[in-house]
Amino acid sequence: MLNQKETPIILAEQVQTSLSNLAPLTRKVFLSLNPPSSLDNRADVDQVRHMLERSFGSVSVPREIMPKVPGTCRSADWQVTATLADIGCGWKLIDLEPGDTSREQFGLAIDIGTTTVVVYLVDLCSGEVLRHAADYNDQIMMGEDILNRIRYAAEPNGLAQLQKAVLNTLNRLIKVLCPLPMETSKITAAAIGANTTMIHLLLGLDPASICRAPYTPMINNPGLIPAREIGIDIHSLAPVYCLPSIGSYLGGDVIGGILVSGMHKQPAISLFVDIGTNGEIVLGNEDWLVACAGAAGPALEGGVTTFGMRAEPGAVDHVSIDPKTGWVEYSTIDNLPAKGICGSGLVDTLAGLFLGGFINRSARFQNGQNEFVIVPAHEAAEGEDIVISQVDINNFMATKGAVNAATDLLMENVGCPWQEISHFYAAGAFGQYLPIESAVTIGLYPDLPRSAILRLGNSSGEAARQVLLSRTKRLEAEAIAEKVTYFELNANAAFMDKFVGSKFLPHTDLERYPSVNQRLQNHF
Amino acid sequence: MLNQKETPIILAEQVQTSLSNLAPLTRKVFLSLNPPSSLDNRADVDQVRHMLERSFGSVSVPREIMPKVPGTCRSADWQVTATLADIGCGWKLIDLEPGDTSREQFGLAIDIGTTTVVVYLVDLCSGEVLRHAADYNDQIMMGEDILNRIRYAAEPNGLAQLQKAVLNTLNRLIKVLCPLPMETSKITAAAIGANTTMIHLLLGLDPASICRAPYTPMINNPGLIPAREIGIDIHSLAPVYCLPSIGSYLGGDVIGGILVSGMHKQPAISLFVDIGTNGEIVLGNEDWLVACAGAAGPALEGGVTTFGMRAEPGAVDHVSIDPKTGWVEYSTIDNLPAKGICGSGLVDTLAGLFLGGFINRSARFQNGQNEFVIVPAHEAAEGEDIVISQVDINNFMATKGAVNAATDLLMENVGCPWQEISHFYAAGAFGQYLPIESAVTIGLYPDLPRSAILRLGNSSGEAARQVLLSRTKRLEAEAIAEKVTYFELNANAAFMDKFVGSKFLPHTDLERYPSVNQRLQNHF
Repeated sequence: MLNQKETPIILAEQVQTSLSNLAPLTRKVFLSLNPPSSLDNRADVDQVRHMLERSFGSVSVPREIMPKVPGTCRSADWQVTATLADIGCGWKLIDLEPGDTSREQFGLAIDIGTTTVVVYLVDLCSGEVLRHAADYNDQIMMGEDILNRIRYAAEPNGLAQLQKAVLNTLNRLIKVLCPLPMETSKITAAAIGANTTMIHLLLGLDPASICRAPYTPMINNPGLIPAREIGIDIHSLAPVYCLPSIGSYLGGDVIGGILVSGMHKQPAISLFVDIGTNGEIVLGNEDWLVACAGAAGPALEGGVTTFGMRAEPGAVDHVSIDPKTGWVEYSTIDNLPAKGICGSGLVDTLAGLFLGGFINRSARFQNGQNEFVIVPAHEAAEGEDIVISQVDINNFMATKGAVNAATDLLMENVGCPWQEISHFYAAGAFGQYLPIESAVTIGLYPDLPRSAILRLGNSSGEAARQVLLSRTKRLEAEAIAEKVTYFELNANAAFMDKFVGSKFLPHTDLERYPSVNQRLQNHF
Repeated sequence: MLNQKETPIILAEQVQTSLSNLAPLTRKVFLSLNPPSSLDNRADVDQVRHMLERSFGSVSVPREIMPKVPGTCRSADWQVTATLADIGCGWKLIDLEPGDTSREQFGLAIDIGTTTVVVYLVDLCSGEVLRHAADYNDQIMMGEDILNRIRYAAEPNGLAQLQKAVLNTLNRLIKVLCPLPMETSKITAAAIGANTTMIHLLLGLDPASICRAPYTPMINNPGLIPAREIGIDIHSLAPVYCLPSIGSYLGGDVIGGILVSGMHKQPAISLFVDIGTNGEIVLGNEDWLVACAGAAGPALEGGVTTFGMRAEPGAVDHVSIDPKTGWVEYSTIDNLPAKGICGSGLVDTLAGLFLGGFINRSARFQNGQNEFVIVPAHEAAEGEDIVISQVDINNFMATKGAVNAATDLLMENVGCPWQEISHFYAAGAFGQYLPIESAVTIGLYPDLPRSAILRLGNSSGEAARQVLLSRTKRLEAEAIAEKVTYFELNANAAFMDKFVGSKFLPHTDLERYPSVNQRLQNHF
């Protein structure tokens, strides 16, 4: 299991997440029935169905539920609770329990990342997250990134192994959240945010076409699938909804991010960026949405440094460097002796080095230095200096340059000048932990008024929670998927030009970073 | 397998059975898709679904069909045929085939009787019956009538054995109709007419409550169930529709009979009678429908005579008796030496004996006789006289008396004088094979103008065909089920009085049989 740092509870900073009218994927209804008599000797199943149809319209009863009905009704003196699952065009009775259990309704909001899987246990009555658990995706053993997974899926039995791996991860996390089998069967719905490849592998669908022109996945919008047909260990008939994808490289996780941001409902133009194992950028407003994604190569997936590590105990997570003396102050997660540097520590370090003039606008060390000590050997867990080298900085600049290049290209192509960006939404770990000032200083975030920089946390998981709880949000997600225009980055020659020319701090065009420019002038 | 005599092709005598607008349970649609390109790189499954949704509204795609889509589309140059199944509130894609196979659509109309099962292979494009096959219900070994089957179901593993028996019967017949497995998977829909107990046993549902007050079945209207969930060997996702029942003793077979007769749409009052292993009587018109059923005891299920046999080769099926000489002319099925007498032969015999004065109005032999030779020993297959005895006649009169008593009681209770009956519908074998004149003579059929006596043949099977082919007919069947009032015969003390007083030929009230009265007067 990952620790708390790795498992953000769903809470989008500055973003309204409360749902006024809950309309979850499954509903529980308490029924007070009449015992059959010679005056009303309708069949038990029909009586239950008729009563439900009064409020829900078309309700079907699967054969396997039928035998349960008479016994449950009779044992509970005809006071029973029905569980209804949304099947898109109507409802299906998936359970009948004795007594009134209508307050006990649970669902799962699931974020399946290429690297990390997070499962949130949601109270379907209140909409609140009760517990959550996270772990690495077991598929990592079969390839670190999406392309390697797709390659693995083409091996004999590879697809089945990949599906099994992610199901093992999911079902292990579900067991952590609900240790008793009786409890897991009370989970009657699930919604999933994930990229297109993750959805294909979860459903056991061949992802080969995702990385072959014309990059057409097998499915974008899988609709509602019973949990049993996938292999998720919750109520066997629980409907599972996957956030729809737009294409091979813009998955339900991105649609979810847009949904959570609300940028698709605002007249002003916003920029949405999620940099995880893959990177996605979306630009637009209520009228249009354009998106691009970087799936190939290390440019958007890199950021690997010699002492880089995940945000686990012992990681240096905050760094400040005295611009005059070069003196370093740092903190580590759980205050343990430092083992390495995680993403937020790295961004702080780069910002400090840049503001102190230790590296120049091209991110090159000045004064003949080629590394910088962040934690001296005697303070480090391994008794060795923890440093950042020129190579580390170059790797990071490739990632940052790719984000800048892709953003600029997208904006140029739709003819949107950077002054028109009203909000910046940062999603995922990229949006959850990075220190805002440092991220702006090195040009990872745009230099907007800080109130216009909104961090969405795990927007894929939060979007899953929203669609789990709201039919309106499901329709909204599907409308977003219909609306987004995909901008092909890989096929674009201009991207490489931009990329090469964008490795500057904070940005090639310093005018776009007035607050950083101001601070630089204050320092010198 | 039963021979032709036992397996009436669906053809309701004098009843219009053509369906103007076919709307079968499954539809096939030929799709000419666009290969994906960089301009339209929607996922394959989504492209298929979008195209279908233009004409059909909500269409869902089950997980198991998804992997089939890309390969089928690509192998067939994007010219494919989709099979859609009605799921009540929308449609489900259950198959995708290469090329245009939209003219190859097959379904089954099934009549599951307590004794006999008939399966009709129906062309879903034309609505026509292509072939049919019939056999005894394998459940007979576990009890001859409904009550014994229900008792057997209560034994350990009894229910499972009964379900397996009827499934074996069905699947054997399906194999006869479609010997190749490839062909059976092309059968994409089925509709079933059967009594309430037969439906419970087919679906593996405990029928115990059917014969326990307040006689509430587990289910009246099972809706649409995928064939696989029942165990019928056709396309695994083929929707199976069971004609709804009204209660424990008025099953989908009777609803089907009403549907086929059309009595529920006529302003004039009709009488519907089906005497098989059970007996059901329905009275009514477009405004009201009242029905009763006799499930208990031999009264309506009897008619067993010493030389009684089913209508198989060698059965005496037609008899005429010279009223003056008592000379007998008879025919046998397939002109084989006589083995016994089937129902139609028995009715002819009784009518002849009555008209010739060999038996009186109380159905007692006159002149000290106590049996009558129909086939002399030297003509009979077994070298023994084939006779009808006083005991045989008494048994038959019990059945006839019960039908008359039940009918009269029903009419009295709704205040309908017999003069108001405009049409008489005779269903099942009772309606298919009995010689009309003889049936009227002995009072089994009412003495109406012969054009008002309509024989529906296997109306349960015909109704199954109609609901297989027409959504309107399905709704009509469900509306009939809502409308019929069940009249409890067993709980009615007046029934026994009527029954005892009704064992007269043709009827207690001779005025109701003017044409018979006329013939009697002509003879004497």
